[in-house]
Amino acid sequence: MDKRSAGAVRSEDVPLPTGTDISLDELRLAARNHAMPLEALRWPITPVGLHYLLIHYDVPLVDPTEWRLELGGAVERPTTLTLDDLRSRPAVELAATMECAGNGRALLEPRPVSQPWLTEAVGTGLWRGVELAPLLAEAGPGPGAVDVVFSGLDRGVEGEVEQRYERSLPLGEAASAGCLLAYELNGVPLPPQHGFPLRLVVPGWYGMTNVKWLSAITVTETPFAGYQVATGYRVRQSEEEDGRPVTRMRVRSLMVPPGIPDFMTRERVVDVGPVDLRGRAWSGRAPIARVEVSDDGGETWADAELEPFPDQRWAWAGWSFPWQPAAAGHFTLCCRATDEAGETQPLEPEWNLGGYENNAVQRVTVRVR
Amino acid sequence: MDKRSAGAVRSEDVPLPTGTDISLDELRLAARNHAMPLEALRWPITPVGLHYLLIHYDVPLVDPTEWRLELGGAVERPTTLTLDDLRSRPAVELAATMECAGNGRALLEPRPVSQPWLTEAVGTGLWRGVELAPLLAEAGPGPGAVDVVFSGLDRGVEGEVEQRYERSLPLGEAASAGCLLAYELNGVPLPPQHGFPLRLVVPGWYGMTNVKWLSAITVTETPFAGYQVATGYRVRQSEEEDGRPVTRMRVRSLMVPPGIPDFMTRERVVDVGPVDLRGRAWSGRAPIARVEVSDDGGETWADAELEPFPDQRWAWAGWSFPWQPAAAGHFTLCCRATDEAGETQPLEPEWNLGGYENNAVQRVTVRVR
Repeated sequence: MDKRSAGAVRSEDVPLPTGTDISLDELRLAARNHAMPLEALRWPITPVGLHYLLIHYDVPLVDPTEWRLELGGAVERPTTLTLDDLRSRPAVELAATMECAGNGRALLEPRPVSQPWLTEAVGTGLWRGVELAPLLAEAGPGPGAVDVVFSGLDRGVEGEVEQRYERSLPLGEAASAGCLLAYELNGVPLPPQHGFPLRLVVPGWYGMTNVKWLSAITVTETPFAGYQVATGYRVRQSEEEDGRPVTRMRVRSLMVPPGIPDFMTRERVVDVGPVDLRGRAWSGRAPIARVEVSDDGGETWADAELEPFPDQRWAWAGWSFPWQPAAAGHFTLCCRATDEAGETQPLEPEWNLGGYENNAVQRVTVRVR
Repeated sequence: MDKRSAGAVRSEDVPLPTGTDISLDELRLAARNHAMPLEALRWPITPVGLHYLLIHYDVPLVDPTEWRLELGGAVERPTTLTLDDLRSRPAVELAATMECAGNGRALLEPRPVSQPWLTEAVGTGLWRGVELAPLLAEAGPGPGAVDVVFSGLDRGVEGEVEQRYERSLPLGEAASAGCLLAYELNGVPLPPQHGFPLRLVVPGWYGMTNVKWLSAITVTETPFAGYQVATGYRVRQSEEEDGRPVTRMRVRSLMVPPGIPDFMTRERVVDVGPVDLRGRAWSGRAPIARVEVSDDGGETWADAELEPFPDQRWAWAGWSFPWQPAAAGHFTLCCRATDEAGETQPLEPEWNLGGYENNAVQRVTVRVR
């Protein structure tokens, strides 16, 4: 009997890249924050309950009849909106792929200590709601307006700073990026864990900007310097460095691991013969131009066929590749996307202190028999 | 700045109980299997996407028009049923709490290596479907019938055994336990991850028996000896020992952690003043008789008020306790349930090789300020 599968006492498995102990804190985060099992890449729209979740504090319990959205700050006409007010405005629907900025963090070496994502903190939702831009225009930002701050109802302590979750966008970006205030996901009211009753969706940006449980939109005349913008979500090499902010998603692709898995190792077993490899690719910076596949760990590559999501710029593009393994044996499958801005996924990640934007190619170990 | 919250390089946190490295394999399982964030205890019925998920292999992609349920084996009238056949039968609805048998595994010392659950692998679904007992009676088990085997469409390798996921129940239990063949959860068709299009729900049993993606029910004349019954899910101290099977859920209670969390440590901060502690308790063996609360790590206890779920024997019972911390400082909150069979949660877990049935009391560290 395989010791690992039946609950043996100590692990003989591969240690994490750093070789350091993962802490109870990290495991607690891994338990409550949900990754998307990679086989869910089969669905163009991720079913509710399979989309990734990163919840900084707690899911708040919100009474929708009491809930209000306050739109104020440096605007000429501050306003307060109920959910019915929002639902009575013209609705738009948007398929948007969303990825956590920390996706891939636990594969960095040394491993930044935070939510220990491997490769699968992603999902694509069909969001329905109202456009932010006309709401902002109606409120009328003043001449000195700089940023738009989005405040959630979720509260906690982070970096010893007690806070509600808040992120900002430059006014120009907020007005032009196609932002949505979403009250539905996949045809149902927002589930609690996705921000009920209202969340921001900023197409193309990493997940942290898509503020959930949204209750206030505040236009400011000075740059917003809250924790989640000035301290968290910055790409830098050391704490002394100011770094640059995390913004739009870098190009990335993932595949549905083929064949069947081993319970404990997740290694794949595939029968000799044609294998229909499938996956998805996305970039928040430009449309996907190309996806390539390798079965030798990235030594050699062949082009996959792209199947763009019709009329949906912000949703991932499907791809497929008819793989014919040469013989039985072990293979390391990889996929690599390139976007129209010319960015290609690297074979090895670029390390940074917070473990953000790791878009290195996925590796799937397969045993062909 | 708190190093742990902003992505410092190495952890200074409390190591896991064993002091051994958690492996990449375990972290991969923790990512794809979802725990229920404890604040979701607020809902009597767990919203879709917050219920715990343990998926041994992959979520299969099932075409409901092609799908069939084969009911056969040692029966007089084998039959094949479509989803429409099942939906045309009288429907029943059942609120059932379901907990993974491995819940609490990662808190055992030494830590059994498998899916590293902490405390929150639980959820309560409102399942709708058809009763198993009349279907079985119509098929007519033969005089030598012993077990009923439930086979899922999910396939993988476990303990070096390639298998589809299968569990059995003794015929008497299958006919009398109030088993449901469920095609809906919380008013919607079963989500893929909960077993679309059909799953077994065995009220009161640990999760592993509630076979998902059900495609065959087979009555046998010899005791079923498949992996998930004969090798996995047995309580034993060593691999040499045969042990006893995991069956019904042991008594357990959990609380909604009060106050607000620290992002990284999940430690709670609570303001001085009255605190409304709330949680839920369940047992698959007998109704809940009592829940007690402690704020000193289990030294002293006081009774909570029970709020049973009306007419729902198989759903958890809510409880509440008006806590008035004596002063600012650190407290370790615990809750402890007792069922009508007289079983009470232990303060310390009872170790076993597979890490099953750990129903030791939950500990929540709170800083009152």
